[in-house]
Amino acid sequence: MDTMGRHVIAELWDCNTEKLNDMQLIEQIFVDAALKSGAEVREVAFHKFAPHGVSGVVIISESHLTIHSFPEHGYASIDVYTCGNIIDPNVATDYIIDALEAKTCEKAELPRGMGPVAVQPKSH
Amino acid sequence: MDTMGRHVIAELWDCNTEKLNDMQLIEQIFVDAALKSGAEVREVAFHKFAPHGVSGVVIISESHLTIHSFPEHGYASIDVYTCGNIIDPNVATDYIIDALEAKTCEKAELPRGMGPVAVQPKSH
Repeated sequence: MDTMGRHVIAELWDCNTEKLNDMQLIEQIFVDAALKSGAEVREVAFHKFAPHGVSGVVIISESHLTIHSFPEHGYASIDVYTCGNIIDPNVATDYIIDALEAKTCEKAELPRGMGPVAVQPKSH
Repeated sequence: MDTMGRHVIAELWDCNTEKLNDMQLIEQIFVDAALKSGAEVREVAFHKFAPHGVSGVVIISESHLTIHSFPEHGYASIDVYTCGNIIDPNVATDYIIDALEAKTCEKAELPRGMGPVAVQPKSH
Protein backbone atom coordinates (compact mmCIF):
# COMPACT_ATOMS: atom_id res chain seq x y z
CA MET A 1 0.00 0.00 0.00
CA ASP A 2 1.11 3.55 -0.70
CA THR A 3 2.30 5.46 2.36
CA MET A 4 0.37 8.58 1.35
CA GLY A 5 -2.44 9.46 3.73
CA ARG A 6 -4.73 12.24 4.92
CA HIS A 7 -5.14 12.93 8.64
CA VAL A 8 -8.00 15.13 9.80
CA ILE A 9 -7.75 16.59 13.30
CA ALA A 10 -11.06 17.91 14.59
CA GLU A 11 -11.79 19.77 17.82
CA LEU A 12 -15.51 19.56 18.63
CA TRP A 13 -16.98 21.95 21.18
CA ASP A 14 -20.50 22.48 22.55
CA CYS A 15 -21.46 18.88 21.80
CA ASN A 16 -24.41 16.97 23.23
CA THR A 17 -22.97 16.13 26.65
CA GLU A 18 -25.12 13.02 27.18
CA LYS A 19 -23.89 11.54 23.93
CA LEU A 20 -20.29 12.32 24.90
CA ASN A 21 -20.67 10.07 27.94
CA ASP A 22 -22.40 7.15 26.16
CA MET A 23 -19.68 4.68 25.20
CA GLN A 24 -21.90 2.29 23.26
CA LEU A 25 -23.39 5.13 21.23
CA ILE A 26 -19.98 6.61 20.46
CA GLU A 27 -18.65 3.22 19.40
CA GLN A 28 -21.62 2.82 17.03
CA ILE A 29 -21.16 6.34 15.65
CA PHE A 30 -17.49 5.66 14.95
CA VAL A 31 -18.07 2.29 13.27
CA ASP A 32 -20.84 3.86 11.18
CA ALA A 33 -18.59 6.80 10.28
CA ALA A 34 -15.88 4.42 9.09
CA LEU A 35 -18.31 2.36 7.02
CA LYS A 36 -20.00 5.41 5.50
CA SER A 37 -16.64 6.67 4.29
CA GLY A 38 -16.02 3.31 2.59
CA ALA A 39 -13.39 2.08 5.06
CA GLU A 40 -12.97 -1.53 6.21
CA VAL A 41 -13.17 -1.96 10.01
CA ARG A 42 -10.47 -4.20 11.53
CA GLU A 43 -10.38 -3.58 15.31
CA VAL A 44 -12.57 -1.67 17.75
CA ALA A 45 -11.43 -0.69 21.27
CA PHE A 46 -13.27 1.73 23.54
CA HIS A 47 -12.89 2.64 27.19
CA LYS A 48 -15.25 4.41 29.60
CA PHE A 49 -13.71 6.55 32.31
CA ALA A 50 -15.19 7.25 35.73
CA PRO A 51 -16.91 9.55 36.46
CA HIS A 52 -17.14 10.62 32.82
CA GLY A 53 -15.43 10.52 29.44
CA VAL A 54 -14.89 7.99 26.68
CA SER A 55 -11.75 7.13 24.72
CA GLY A 56 -11.78 4.84 21.74
CA VAL A 57 -10.38 3.80 18.42
CA VAL A 58 -11.56 2.09 15.29
CA ILE A 59 -8.66 0.62 13.35
CA ILE A 60 -9.50 0.45 9.66
CA SER A 61 -7.55 -1.11 6.81
CA GLU A 62 -6.81 2.47 5.79
CA SER A 63 -5.53 3.64 9.27
CA HIS A 64 -7.73 4.81 12.19
CA LEU A 65 -10.42 6.93 13.81
CA THR A 66 -10.04 8.02 17.46
CA ILE A 67 -12.02 9.98 20.01
CA HIS A 68 -11.43 11.36 23.48
CA SER A 69 -14.55 12.90 24.97
CA PHE A 70 -14.85 15.32 27.90
CA PRO A 71 -18.59 15.52 28.62
CA GLU A 72 -18.00 17.97 31.46
CA HIS A 73 -16.54 20.42 28.94
CA GLY A 74 -18.80 19.53 25.98
CA TYR A 75 -15.59 18.73 24.13
CA ALA A 76 -14.49 15.84 21.91
CA SER A 77 -11.08 15.44 20.34
CA ILE A 78 -11.32 13.55 17.03
CA ASP A 79 -8.78 12.10 14.60
CA VAL A 80 -9.64 10.50 11.27
CA TYR A 81 -6.64 9.21 9.36
CA THR A 82 -7.03 7.43 6.02
CA CYS A 83 -4.25 6.07 3.83
CA GLY A 84 -4.47 6.06 0.07
CA ASN A 85 -6.40 8.46 -2.10
CA ILE A 86 -9.76 6.70 -2.37
CA ILE A 87 -11.32 7.48 1.02
CA ASP A 88 -11.96 11.06 2.07
CA PRO A 89 -11.47 11.39 5.86
CA ASN A 90 -13.80 14.39 5.89
CA VAL A 91 -16.79 12.12 5.18
CA ALA A 92 -16.32 10.28 8.47
CA THR A 93 -15.34 13.45 10.33
CA ASP A 94 -18.43 15.35 9.22
CA TYR A 95 -20.65 12.39 10.13
CA ILE A 96 -19.18 12.38 13.65
CA ILE A 97 -19.53 16.16 14.00
CA ASP A 98 -23.22 15.90 13.13
CA ALA A 99 -23.84 12.83 15.30
CA LEU A 100 -22.30 14.45 18.40
CA GLU A 101 -24.20 17.67 17.64
CA ALA A 102 -21.09 19.86 17.86
CA LYS A 103 -22.04 23.52 17.60
CA THR A 104 -18.43 24.64 17.17
CA CYS A 105 -15.69 22.77 15.34
CA GLU A 106 -12.13 23.40 14.26
CA LYS A 107 -10.63 21.09 11.63
CA ALA A 108 -7.17 20.77 10.19
CA GLU A 109 -5.86 18.30 7.64
CA LEU A 110 -2.32 16.94 7.68
CA PRO A 111 -0.75 15.04 4.79
CA ARG A 112 0.97 11.85 6.05
CA GLY A 113 3.54 9.54 4.55
CA MET A 114 4.99 12.16 2.23
CA GLY A 115 7.94 13.34 4.31
CA PRO A 116 7.73 16.57 6.34
CA VAL A 117 4.52 17.21 8.25
CA ALA A 118 2.49 20.27 7.33
CA VAL A 119 -0.96 21.38 8.37
CA GLN A 120 -3.79 22.97 6.39
CA PRO A 121 -6.38 24.64 8.61
CA LYS A 122 -9.96 24.28 7.34
CA SER A 123 -13.17 25.93 8.38
CA HIS A 124 -16.27 23.80 8.86
CA MET B 1 -9.75 16.26 33.47
CA ASP B 2 -8.55 19.33 31.66
CA THR B 3 -9.09 19.24 27.88
CA MET B 4 -5.60 20.58 27.21
CA GLY B 5 -3.34 18.09 25.44
CA ARG B 6 -0.23 17.68 23.33
CA HIS B 7 -0.29 15.62 20.15
CA VAL B 8 2.98 14.59 18.54
CA ILE B 9 2.84 13.45 14.91
CA ALA B 10 5.97 11.60 13.80
CA GLU B 11 6.90 10.32 10.37
CA LEU B 12 9.61 7.65 10.67
CA TRP B 13 11.59 6.65 7.58
CA ASP B 14 14.39 4.19 6.94
CA CYS B 15 13.33 2.05 9.90
CA ASN B 16 14.34 -1.56 10.57
CA THR B 17 11.98 -3.29 8.14
CA GLU B 18 11.88 -6.59 10.05
CA LYS B 19 10.76 -4.79 13.20
CA LEU B 20 8.08 -2.94 11.21
CA ASN B 21 6.50 -6.27 10.30
CA ASP B 22 6.64 -7.84 13.79
CA MET B 23 3.30 -7.16 15.45
CA GLN B 24 4.18 -8.61 18.85
CA LEU B 25 7.38 -6.59 19.03
CA ILE B 26 5.61 -3.37 17.99
CA GLU B 27 2.89 -3.94 20.59
CA GLN B 28 5.55 -4.39 23.27
CA ILE B 29 7.43 -1.29 22.12
CA PHE B 30 4.25 0.77 22.29
CA VAL B 31 3.20 -0.46 25.73
CA ASP B 32 6.75 0.15 26.99
CA ALA B 33 6.76 3.63 25.43
CA ALA B 34 3.51 4.49 27.19
CA LEU B 35 4.76 3.20 30.54
CA LYS B 36 8.15 4.93 30.24
CA SER B 37 6.39 8.25 29.69
CA GLY B 38 4.40 7.69 32.90
CA ALA B 39 1.07 6.96 31.18
CA GLU B 40 -1.51 4.44 32.38
CA VAL B 41 -2.39 1.77 29.75
CA ARG B 42 -6.13 1.09 29.36
CA GLU B 43 -6.69 -0.77 26.06
CA VAL B 44 -4.38 -2.37 23.50
CA ALA B 45 -5.48 -3.30 19.95
CA PHE B 46 -3.15 -4.31 17.14
CA HIS B 47 -3.73 -5.76 13.69
CA LYS B 48 -1.35 -7.52 11.29
CA PHE B 49 -1.97 -7.06 7.59
CA ALA B 50 -1.12 -9.54 4.85
CA PRO B 51 1.37 -9.60 3.27
CA HIS B 52 2.93 -6.93 5.48
CA GLY B 53 2.21 -4.01 7.77
CA VAL B 54 0.96 -3.49 11.30
CA SER B 55 -1.62 -1.06 12.67
CA GLY B 56 -2.23 -0.60 16.34
CA VAL B 57 -3.23 1.58 19.22
CA VAL B 58 -2.56 1.84 22.92
CA ILE B 59 -5.31 3.77 24.67
CA ILE B 60 -3.95 5.42 27.80
CA SER B 61 -5.77 7.32 30.50
CA GLU B 62 -4.15 10.39 28.98
CA SER B 63 -5.27 9.70 25.32
CA HIS B 64 -3.47 7.39 22.85
CA LEU B 65 -0.49 6.14 20.90
CA THR B 66 -0.96 4.78 17.35
CA ILE B 67 1.18 3.25 14.62
CA HIS B 68 0.74 2.28 11.00
CA SER B 69 3.79 0.53 9.58
CA PHE B 70 4.74 0.00 5.94
CA PRO B 71 7.70 -2.39 6.06
CA GLU B 72 7.99 -2.38 2.27
CA HIS B 73 8.72 1.35 2.43
CA GLY B 74 10.67 1.37 5.72
CA TYR B 75 8.05 3.82 6.96
CA ALA B 76 6.03 4.10 10.16
CA SER B 77 3.39 6.71 10.89
CA ILE B 78 3.24 7.49 14.62
CA ASP B 79 0.90 9.54 16.83
CA VAL B 80 1.42 10.14 20.54
CA TYR B 81 -1.31 12.23 22.14
CA THR B 82 -1.27 12.99 25.87
CA CYS B 83 -3.80 15.07 27.77
CA GLY B 84 -2.82 17.19 30.71
CA ASN B 85 0.53 18.82 31.36
CA ILE B 86 2.30 16.10 33.34
CA ILE B 87 3.27 13.64 30.60
CA ASP B 88 5.55 14.70 27.76
CA PRO B 89 4.53 12.88 24.55
CA ASN B 90 8.06 13.29 23.22
CA VAL B 91 9.36 10.77 25.77
CA ALA B 92 7.24 7.98 24.24
CA THR B 93 7.83 9.22 20.68
CA ASP B 94 11.60 9.26 21.06
CA TYR B 95 11.56 5.79 22.62
CA ILE B 96 9.61 4.48 19.59
CA ILE B 97 11.94 6.24 17.12
CA ASP B 98 14.94 4.57 18.74
CA ALA B 99 13.26 1.15 19.06
CA LEU B 100 12.27 1.08 15.37
CA GLU B 101 15.74 2.33 14.41
CA ALA B 102 14.42 5.17 12.26
CA LYS B 103 17.27 6.91 10.45
CA THR B 104 15.07 9.82 9.35
CA CYS B 105 12.24 11.37 11.30
CA GLU B 106 9.95 14.36 11.00
CA LYS B 107 8.03 15.45 14.09
CA ALA B 108 5.37 18.05 14.66
CA GLU B 109 3.49 18.90 17.84
CA LEU B 110 -0.13 20.06 17.87
CA PRO B 111 -1.84 21.58 20.89
CA ARG B 112 -5.24 19.95 21.49
CA GLY B 113 -8.29 20.96 23.48
CA MET B 114 -7.50 24.66 23.38
CA GLY B 115 -9.67 25.73 20.44
CA PRO B 116 -8.12 26.25 17.00
CA VAL B 117 -5.60 23.68 15.80
CA ALA B 118 -2.08 24.87 15.11
CA VAL B 119 1.10 22.95 14.38
CA GLN B 120 4.68 23.48 15.55
CA PRO B 121 7.20 21.65 13.36
CA LYS B 122 10.14 20.21 15.30
CA SER B 123 13.40 18.74 14.18
CA HIS B 124 14.63 15.53 15.77
